[in-house]
Amino acid sequence: LNISKKKGQEGRKMDRWVRPTTIIDSYKLKQALGIEVIIASETLQTTGSFKFRAASNLVSHVRNKHIMTASSGNFGQALACACAMTGKKCTVVMPATSAETKIIAVRGFGAEVVLIDTTSQSRGQAVNELALKYPDAYIASPYDDPWVIDGNASLGREVAQLRPRPTVVIVPIGGGGLCAGIIQGLKDSGCAAEVIGAEPLLANDAAQSLRAGKIIAHDTEPQTIADGVRTLSLGRQNWAVMKDHMRTVIEVPEDGIRRAVRIFYDLVNLKVEPTGALSLAALLEMKDSFRGELVCCVVSGGNVDPAVYQTLIGA
Amino acid sequence: LNISKKKGQEGRKMDRWVRPTTIIDSYKLKQALGIEVIIASETLQTTGSFKFRAASNLVSHVRNKHIMTASSGNFGQALACACAMTGKKCTVVMPATSAETKIIAVRGFGAEVVLIDTTSQSRGQAVNELALKYPDAYIASPYDDPWVIDGNASLGREVAQLRPRPTVVIVPIGGGGLCAGIIQGLKDSGCAAEVIGAEPLLANDAAQSLRAGKIIAHDTEPQTIADGVRTLSLGRQNWAVMKDHMRTVIEVPEDGIRRAVRIFYDLVNLKVEPTGALSLAALLEMKDSFRGELVCCVVSGGNVDPAVYQTLIGA
Repeated sequence: LNISKKKGQEGRKMDRWVRPTTIIDSYKLKQALGIEVIIASETLQTTGSFKFRAASNLVSHVRNKHIMTASSGNFGQALACACAMTGKKCTVVMPATSAETKIIAVRGFGAEVVLIDTTSQSRGQAVNELALKYPDAYIASPYDDPWVIDGNASLGREVAQLRPRPTVVIVPIGGGGLCAGIIQGLKDSGCAAEVIGAEPLLANDAAQSLRAGKIIAHDTEPQTIADGVRTLSLGRQNWAVMKDHMRTVIEVPEDGIRRAVRIFYDLVNLKVEPTGALSLAALLEMKDSFRGELVCCVVSGGNVDPAVYQTLIGA
Repeated sequence: LNISKKKGQEGRKMDRWVRPTTIIDSYKLKQALGIEVIIASETLQTTGSFKFRAASNLVSHVRNKHIMTASSGNFGQALACACAMTGKKCTVVMPATSAETKIIAVRGFGAEVVLIDTTSQSRGQAVNELALKYPDAYIASPYDDPWVIDGNASLGREVAQLRPRPTVVIVPIGGGGLCAGIIQGLKDSGCAAEVIGAEPLLANDAAQSLRAGKIIAHDTEPQTIADGVRTLSLGRQNWAVMKDHMRTVIEVPEDGIRRAVRIFYDLVNLKVEPTGALSLAALLEMKDSFRGELVCCVVSGGNVDPAVYQTLIGA
């Protein structure tokens, strides 16, 4: 593998752009919910989601001058930004149905965007085709790559530093990279908080996998409003971490996701994308089970098309 | 004056809810503007605006069990929250045209709301009438009170701690309480950054005052979209601080305010109310004059009616 354990000078310079997560202890939210809840928001992270942690870590360590990925948007944008910061070429395969904001943002960093119809071709197939065209490119999985888990672990270490320590951490699940990273980071820090996944009911492969004890995949990409978690299945490396360390997965109906976005708007002044609202939606779904806990809800990102957001905050 | 220099136990407990300002060093914003700019956002402050700094400081020091104010919303909400935290009664006089979100929020903290028609009666008149009804109440000015300036000064001290230090701080101006507080806080910390006011062109009494060398007042409340700065004039105590220490006031057209709200949405994932966007709008208005500076834009708050925000983020 064309990978180095040491970061180059450019990689170290890029580290300054990894923003510590924004901890929000909201009086109004706590009053409204009657639950001790803390928000760890990645909406203000560079490129607007936790994905920059993974992407910058990967770009720092990989020696290739060209990096390719398939991403519904946030990892694509993060990778494009990290590549722009370090002078690398970047190619991002995106579903044609991705949020327009996300496509524009990836292109804004000078990356090449290849749009595909995910009903006729999987993202993996598209990437494999491109790999023939670009034999020197490194193919980065948005979620199933050791540098990705390692990059995301920094968020787990930050959550572990909260005082008082949370007893439960709720994390949105798509491919599982964030969840596996957080489990790893909490473990690194000796924090015993339990990790609970939050997943749309329409895209509940992680919940199914946990019940089956093995990875269960969707046949086609689920069309949940949480466009950041429209993955076919968990990544294998993530599953290896998650299967033993994730207490449960809460499945959230679409209406619950919308409601959580609106609560963030009304009570916290936080602009959250539907995927990012999954953790609060999960908390609301199983509210009574969290009494007596100190819950940390991880908000994975805030990039949402204005047209979608207008609908979400409508009466 | 029924005021104590010492805070009671409840006041000290309330201090934990004064959130340090959220500093945002946005790569995307800097790239887009080509200016070295840092955001100091009070949108995540308790009750969603900087006003909680002033209100909690005032409530901590005033001994009266009932506090009254006239406020277009953010100070009212902050005061209502601080009173609820300390078990005091609160009455807030609000223009009937205030953002609905803000009225609901004030009532949500158990405060009494008195709505007035500002075209037929000034807020001051309405408060004076109520003072006869409630002779034991302390009447708090949302901006012209020593405890208000003193509370807001904490934000200036936080901005002064930024490294590298900003050379210019741009601050939205309504009654001038935030601006005077920030000037005071920067001075306390020995920070030589220049302070520039940001004001809607439709409500440019501070700019007029600075030109005239004395307080100039509007006859009626100006109908700018920035509803947090629809004040008739600067407070006298604020003016005393501002007249010698504010470099200039940038007057911003309504379209510039809308544009700044949208830029915060697109590039920073920050939900900002029109008043809060004044500082960025001012920067955009006079962009070339800020080259070579390190600019800190203070975002005063984020409470905005969903219906208004829907329009603001529309294409």
